[in-house]
Amino acid sequence: MNRRNFLKTSAALSASSLFPIHLVADSAKKENRSRYPEPMAPKLDGDIKEFRLFIDIYQHQIVPGIKVHTLAFNNQIPGPEIRVKRGDKVRVLFKNETELNHTIHWHGLYVPWRMDGVPYVTQMPVMPGQEFVYEFEAEPYGTHFYHCHWGTVLHMQAGMFGSIIMEEEDDPIQKKFPYDRDYILIYSAHDINFMRHELNAMLERMKERTFLMKNGRFDKERFALFDSLEEFEEAIKKGYQPPYVVNRRAPSELPQANWFTVNGKSYPYTPNLYIKEGENIRVRLINAGNEEHYLHLHGHDFWLVCDDGLPVPQPQQMNTLRLSPGKTLDIIIEGKNRGIWTFHDHDTRRVTNNGLYPGGTLLALIYEDLPMEERMVGPMKGMKMKDMKMNMLPKIALDE
Amino acid sequence: MNRRNFLKTSAALSASSLFPIHLVADSAKKENRSRYPEPMAPKLDGDIKEFRLFIDIYQHQIVPGIKVHTLAFNNQIPGPEIRVKRGDKVRVLFKNETELNHTIHWHGLYVPWRMDGVPYVTQMPVMPGQEFVYEFEAEPYGTHFYHCHWGTVLHMQAGMFGSIIMEEEDDPIQKKFPYDRDYILIYSAHDINFMRHELNAMLERMKERTFLMKNGRFDKERFALFDSLEEFEEAIKKGYQPPYVVNRRAPSELPQANWFTVNGKSYPYTPNLYIKEGENIRVRLINAGNEEHYLHLHGHDFWLVCDDGLPVPQPQQMNTLRLSPGKTLDIIIEGKNRGIWTFHDHDTRRVTNNGLYPGGTLLALIYEDLPMEERMVGPMKGMKMKDMKMNMLPKIALDE
Amino acid sequence: MNRRNFLKTSAALSASSLFPIHLVADSAKKENRSRYPEPMAPKLDGDIKEFRLFIDIYQHQIVPGIKVHTLAFNNQIPGPEIRVKRGDKVRVLFKNETELNHTIHWHGLYVPWRMDGVPYVTQMPVMPGQEFVYEFEAEPYGTHFYHCHWGTVLHMQAGMFGSIIMEEEDDPIQKKFPYDRDYILIYSAHDINFMRHELNAMLERMKERTFLMKNGRFDKERFALFDSLEEFEEAIKKGYQPPYVVNRRAPSELPQANWFTVNGKSYPYTPNLYIKEGENIRVRLINAGNEEHYLHLHGHDFWLVCDDGLPVPQPQQMNTLRLSPGKTLDIIIEGKNRGIWTFHDHDTRRVTNNGLYPGGTLLALIYEDLPMEERMVGPMKGMKMKDMKMNMLPKIALDE
Repeated sequence: MNRRNFLKTSAALSASSLFPIHLVADSAKKENRSRYPEPMAPKLDGDIKEFRLFIDIYQHQIVPGIKVHTLAFNNQIPGPEIRVKRGDKVRVLFKNETELNHTIHWHGLYVPWRMDGVPYVTQMPVMPGQEFVYEFEAEPYGTHFYHCHWGTVLHMQAGMFGSIIMEEEDDPIQKKFPYDRDYILIYSAHDINFMRHELNAMLERMKERTFLMKNGRFDKERFALFDSLEEFEEAIKKGYQPPYVVNRRAPSELPQANWFTVNGKSYPYTPNLYIKEGENIRVRLINAGNEEHYLHLHGHDFWLVCDDGLPVPQPQQMNTLRLSPGKTLDIIIEGKNRGIWTFHDHDTRRVTNNGLYPGGTLLALIYEDLPMEERMVGPMKGMKMKDMKMNMLPKIALDE
Repeated sequence: MNRRNFLKTSAALSASSLFPIHLVADSAKKENRSRYPEPMAPKLDGDIKEFRLFIDIYQHQIVPGIKVHTLAFNNQIPGPEIRVKRGDKVRVLFKNETELNHTIHWHGLYVPWRMDGVPYVTQMPVMPGQEFVYEFEAEPYGTHFYHCHWGTVLHMQAGMFGSIIMEEEDDPIQKKFPYDRDYILIYSAHDINFMRHELNAMLERMKERTFLMKNGRFDKERFALFDSLEEFEEAIKKGYQPPYVVNRRAPSELPQANWFTVNGKSYPYTPNLYIKEGENIRVRLINAGNEEHYLHLHGHDFWLVCDDGLPVPQPQQMNTLRLSPGKTLDIIIEGKNRGIWTFHDHDTRRVTNNGLYPGGTLLALIYEDLPMEERMVGPMKGMKMKDMKMNMLPKIALDE
Repeated sequence: MNRRNFLKTSAALSASSLFPIHLVADSAKKENRSRYPEPMAPKLDGDIKEFRLFIDIYQHQIVPGIKVHTLAFNNQIPGPEIRVKRGDKVRVLFKNETELNHTIHWHGLYVPWRMDGVPYVTQMPVMPGQEFVYEFEAEPYGTHFYHCHWGTVLHMQAGMFGSIIMEEEDDPIQKKFPYDRDYILIYSAHDINFMRHELNAMLERMKERTFLMKNGRFDKERFALFDSLEEFEEAIKKGYQPPYVVNRRAPSELPQANWFTVNGKSYPYTPNLYIKEGENIRVRLINAGNEEHYLHLHGHDFWLVCDDGLPVPQPQQMNTLRLSPGKTLDIIIEGKNRGIWTFHDHDTRRVTNNGLYPGGTLLALIYEDLPMEERMVGPMKGMKMKDMKMNMLPKIALDE
């Protein structure tokens, strides 16, 4: 490319040892794969694809030094990746292994309403030890996700989410932007203090609830559960105080996230994207958290090709994308500008770990085929690089 | 539909008593109408359509048990629905019945600038007891709203907002997506503690202001009101301290909403949407609050057809929609998937009442024509439903 | 226009003295120009356009009475406007005059990756007293910006941002919407308390770092800087506690903005937009801050024509626009409705100064050619305007 020739400043160094080996090495690429959702193979029951999901308590490491006791599908955060063909018959055998209630909501899918996973609206909650079978045909095409819909403020940020991808024989995006690699990035935001407090409070309430139910003393008012609006209003008239009046939580106790994750991990444990010059990659972005993310890619404009799974009428180019809570967006990145480029939320508060920059959603787009002459790091005037033993890029910096 | 036949799990129960009667009963549908803005019939003065609006103190119930003293147009939250034909000549006789200042801003309308309702910019504030006449031609087409533009941080969340709809003889949306039912959902967010504190503080300042004005002792610096920037800068030079320096409010006192309403009400008092299979409904979404809402509809992709009132060049399908502060968006929901489906903000903090999930903006899309065989609620393994007397869906659950 | 004739209410006053002279006077228009970024003329070195940028401590006045010690490019907030032709060869000689580290990131540009300005990823930080030369070809077309990418949470809100505009011989927007005036509005949000605290903390850490480096005692763990993920993980295994574990900042100390600026200034110091009837103006909106802005223009629908610099496939009309962190959006306003109109964030919290409404991003679109008969301010019933000496609009009101 012509414009590269005009660069005179960054004098090439001779040593190939300066190569950023920890990012393009095979071991790094292999480890990177472990930072993506784990695909789950279905069992076939006739023409039905059967998957097994369970929820249990799980100890999750966000970054070195930060472990949280939380809830997860199949001991994974995110939960397993379910990938089927559009129109497939799908059965999910769901088992609740915890002492709390749960359900599964299929976000973006045209499931029958009784399979929608909203407790007390489409089904009874799946209680401790119980099973529930979800069955539906895989519609519509595209990138979708599933998540627990019980106590959702806690349960979603706890990590109970996963991707469900509907493929099509004749993929409309593949036709326009032929690609080989297909990445899934699930964003979330977590208030660790809220999670700990709320998880404990929920377990306490459930113990009481279970005890009372077993003894046939389940009390609607105690658990704020009514058969109808009329029944609720009747209770109020007789002096019942709903929980939002006698509140156990102050407004300031609504979660204020201090950890921002991609596929359950924060920088420097975030997944990276690998690409080659001339290649397209498809990245499926899912926001399973409560915060909007303003994702900015350096050095490129990418194509927005799908919104909530559906191909957009007219793909548009941009370098910064709003990924709102509940949205899935697919983008195509064209390998047009060799290098190592960051891809991160432009609300800088979400590129922090527990308040410290850099961290959070920071990740990199890495060209595997960086030619040797572009790998070199030139010294700056007045800098004694040798003394500092800091002559390789990129580095891990955690307190800028 | 073919895919329904494949469902084997949820065994049908026999009793028709399990029907979710409190949602599809005539009484429920009738009560639901009261949760929508009340249309206001104009008085005709020649070819001018005349409407009367007043503002007064009003006691508003958000949900059972939560009443707030606030400010409202015509003792209604939202204010009356004004619906006219595009091009109509409109006159609004506005009376301020309170001890505070007010104006009306016509958001999205091409009014003459002196009718725009911005105090000290396009008009003097309408002071206690005063009247003001707004006159304009109804332009442009579509979904718009009006709201008070004085002390806007408080006055908008107080409830002083209402819808103004401009119809067209040959409706462009009706042509593409023929519909019969037309719903208006106005979203807002309220910090009840801020409202109480600020309303009282404002009344105190107004008392002082009125007293001083009556005695001809109105002091510009005391009320931080200057004729021009030069005059303001002159005062500063002479040692005047503007209010933002000697601040009566700390930044943390900016409102942090703890109530999230649709048409002034929170779940379980939110308005519901009724639909039939094969029918289209038009839903006009208005954000009169300070928070962005990420509205997610279960089981469907809807069409986004208008943005700020104007038909979009190319309607697009999605299941999650950003409704930003100040935006109006029209969507078409196609009745394609029978059931009872939730429609709510996917920032789960906004589906809470005073910090407790569920609540806030949670509402339901209800198919009136649910056939009998789909109304049944099947028990789950290990659950003794009879014992629990909880065999009907949906329920009112207020503390999950 | 026909609809104006129908206005009967606002009786015309006779005195031309009521004209809002402080906004359309030549002096006001001249002062207004100083509220826009200052264009920087390049030095030519052959066919290379050379610009000089430096960063130094700078005392910045947001509004009268509020001065902050902060960091700025070339003692200006925003930094100088760089305007080149697409394809130009650009060289930026950058000098760090402070005791802190810095870099420059070229947001939205297709620069070579080693010119991208991300410390430890594409280059070593530019340390106190050092220089760095950025060279690139100007691509792509449109509205972009540059900002410091070191300690970004602090450094961006500190004011280290500026616009970089790529022009094209045959401008695609000019063709569709011929315009003469071209405005740049850069939005940001600032937590002044965070800035003061963090700037001091950063200077302390840098002093220690510099001292240790000079003495050859630079300690990777002390400064949380590692050559690779493996090295970092190795340190953890040996008992190293990363900074996000032993945190010097609580989550609540993440910035919560209390000042909202346009081109570095808050109302009543915000820049205004001038227009004439029948004229188009182009406004380049850049969000260099952490908050989303919901920009609402009164009395008009404008055209959204560019997103992240690139012309959108199909311009769309609206009156309220999301300007997300990291986004640049170009709009065309058509001079179709004479008057003085406000243009502001519809999240009313961002139209405050230090918690007080009005303030923040509030600015005005002003028709220079307001005809005499529309300039008059009519009195309202019951108001004795003469007594109040308040017969001219608009005014400066700072505590509504």
